[in-house]
Amino acid sequence: MSDANGKAPADLAARAAALDTADELGKLRDRFTLPDGVVYLDGNSLGALATGVAARIAQVITHEWGTELIQSWSAGTWWTAPERIGDKISPLIGAAPGQTVVGDSTSVNLFKALVGAARLARPGRTRMLVDAATFPTDGYIAESAARMTGLTVTPVDPSDAAGAMDEDTAVVLLNHVDYRSGRLHDLAALTAAARAAGAVTVWDLCHSAGALPVGLDEHGVDLAVGCTYKYLNGGPGSPAYLYIAARHQGAFDSPLPGWNGHAKPFAMTPDYTPAAGAVRGRVGTPDILSMLALEAALDAWDGVSVEAVRAKSLALTDFFLECVAAYVPAGRVESVTPAEHERRGSQVSLRTENARAVMDDLISRGVIGDFRAPDVLRFGFTPLYVGFADAERAARTLGHIFG
Amino acid sequence: MSDANGKAPADLAARAAALDTADELGKLRDRFTLPDGVVYLDGNSLGALATGVAARIAQVITHEWGTELIQSWSAGTWWTAPERIGDKISPLIGAAPGQTVVGDSTSVNLFKALVGAARLARPGRTRMLVDAATFPTDGYIAESAARMTGLTVTPVDPSDAAGAMDEDTAVVLLNHVDYRSGRLHDLAALTAAARAAGAVTVWDLCHSAGALPVGLDEHGVDLAVGCTYKYLNGGPGSPAYLYIAARHQGAFDSPLPGWNGHAKPFAMTPDYTPAAGAVRGRVGTPDILSMLALEAALDAWDGVSVEAVRAKSLALTDFFLECVAAYVPAGRVESVTPAEHERRGSQVSLRTENARAVMDDLISRGVIGDFRAPDVLRFGFTPLYVGFADAERAARTLGHIFG
Repeated sequence: MSDANGKAPADLAARAAALDTADELGKLRDRFTLPDGVVYLDGNSLGALATGVAARIAQVITHEWGTELIQSWSAGTWWTAPERIGDKISPLIGAAPGQTVVGDSTSVNLFKALVGAARLARPGRTRMLVDAATFPTDGYIAESAARMTGLTVTPVDPSDAAGAMDEDTAVVLLNHVDYRSGRLHDLAALTAAARAAGAVTVWDLCHSAGALPVGLDEHGVDLAVGCTYKYLNGGPGSPAYLYIAARHQGAFDSPLPGWNGHAKPFAMTPDYTPAAGAVRGRVGTPDILSMLALEAALDAWDGVSVEAVRAKSLALTDFFLECVAAYVPAGRVESVTPAEHERRGSQVSLRTENARAVMDDLISRGVIGDFRAPDVLRFGFTPLYVGFADAERAARTLGHIFG
Repeated sequence: MSDANGKAPADLAARAAALDTADELGKLRDRFTLPDGVVYLDGNSLGALATGVAARIAQVITHEWGTELIQSWSAGTWWTAPERIGDKISPLIGAAPGQTVVGDSTSVNLFKALVGAARLARPGRTRMLVDAATFPTDGYIAESAARMTGLTVTPVDPSDAAGAMDEDTAVVLLNHVDYRSGRLHDLAALTAAARAAGAVTVWDLCHSAGALPVGLDEHGVDLAVGCTYKYLNGGPGSPAYLYIAARHQGAFDSPLPGWNGHAKPFAMTPDYTPAAGAVRGRVGTPDILSMLALEAALDAWDGVSVEAVRAKSLALTDFFLECVAAYVPAGRVESVTPAEHERRGSQVSLRTENARAVMDDLISRGVIGDFRAPDVLRFGFTPLYVGFADAERAARTLGHIFG
């Protein structure tokens, strides 16, 4: 078998081995527990298990809950977990401390952010621009937030978003990376355009944080949300986060003013006085087991630069696309992920016929990606634990299926 | 030392031993892991650790997450956890299956319930009656829900609530048991009054579910919420639940229409079509570690009747009050928990001077209750793992502090 460029598979396998040997991040794989014999390219859906998480949660359950009981709330690490873990995420999204708080699901945080944005927006503006290709929950929640704040949702292709922003635009909700295609949007330029139009920006970072630099502070983003169970490896359904830029914190008016966001929660006063800082984004009692599992998982990022992760991510997706071109017969798959680096996230999405059956076949052969309706094979490249040999094997296995 | 009734401490200790011997629920304590030498009377704040939870979560982390990875979402027990665990709670709150869904915090569920209630309410009504003594988060969230649905909050003492319900009352939010005083409100009568007035009821069950019969279906409650980390022992910050009576499910219109509540979540369509049943109360991806810890904890209820729990609860609080009267010098504490059984939850709240210092002293002597501002010592009696000797020791220790 040889590809259009005349490369034999042996060349690619040797190249992969050499790339893995030279990879400075390669040793980070030891920070994770992965099953033997599996190529895991679905870390953009559920990140792998970091070492240390199981032992930490065993300690939390047996000692902090079972033995220390209620005293873990008053004297332990529990109460401040949302802001402490938020600050552990901050460097990954380019945020100075004190602007990020962890808790609730992405959908719930998006509701806080969008209603908060509508209340920060200039009076009289009526439109909420929303990425038309967004992950569905963002669109559903945007409709609800708009309905409850008197705005109207206008779906927009992110390519056209800058042009659509005008003096009637109150809020702009965009995804940094599109969940289906893996397309990376220009956060800096789109945020600048929104600011020029006087609109408040809300960015969804679910598919970018932990895979590439975000630069929330640098680019002047107003509000952002993201999940932690993809590239941040927090575990199934681990709590999401909310970023509130420091300049907006005093005026941020949450639709979910739970007692955890109160300035003096244990005073238990009937009137709500929001806490200073991002803490006002808290709502109810944080789910400690999921929260502290995330905290332990974030230890895998110790000493890791997001820039190095981005460089490896691009090298991995470049190499995977090269291997797919070499191994898969022409015409059987089509990449819907942009080829240009500046428009590519950390995944490769291939359109093909019978995509669901093809993915099932791949999984049965030990290559785990996922299927997204109606016709997309999605392969996520998580540089902390995926290597070049994984990319080569995945493409080679795909070639066998079409061979 | 003897009390006003002439009982010597030895009598009470012997009585406690006899009561524990005769207690049919006494053996349930083996279903929990409690530290040696401690009397734990704060299970109404954080329930104790049930045996089985640590092993279950270790399996979830190591096997389901670490090894099975994404396949646990498609093939495992994760996706249906919210409704499955909801149905495991249902018998404890008197709900037929299919009406209860677990996830999010109590505050978030309360927002869904109150906005949902406002949208179910008769057109033109403007008032939301809210328990004036409620746990603060309920009041804060009620203000937000009212603001966003065009209603006005009217605080009301639950004693006066029935009289305050009129043709302008849209929604009524009440607590089944008051968190501070332990006062039990008449859910049946107040729900009937609300129905007669044409108002929609939302009950907060945080301090009653798992301690006494609730009877949501029997009494015709419309909507209810509750936490799971008190009498249900789900663990720190374990997810809360939302009850939507079957008759309202078709019209229940959530302000948080996340993708998990969609009729076909994986179709990923841009339009939101709510799922049938209580599932439409779901929002984002459930936090699996906290969720499955709760599920394992609920095994402690196997074969337990809520009526038997209630009988023991009343016997425990009666006996504790008797011991307090015997051991504590007259005038040093005053019970703010109603003496009548039909008005008492499963806690005893004693008002005293320097309540915070007294509670700290008690805790240092191995009796763990809690302090609620400004002057309340709160003792929760959780019949699954608290016995009569615990009640006697707690009162005796309190007597020593005042002796």
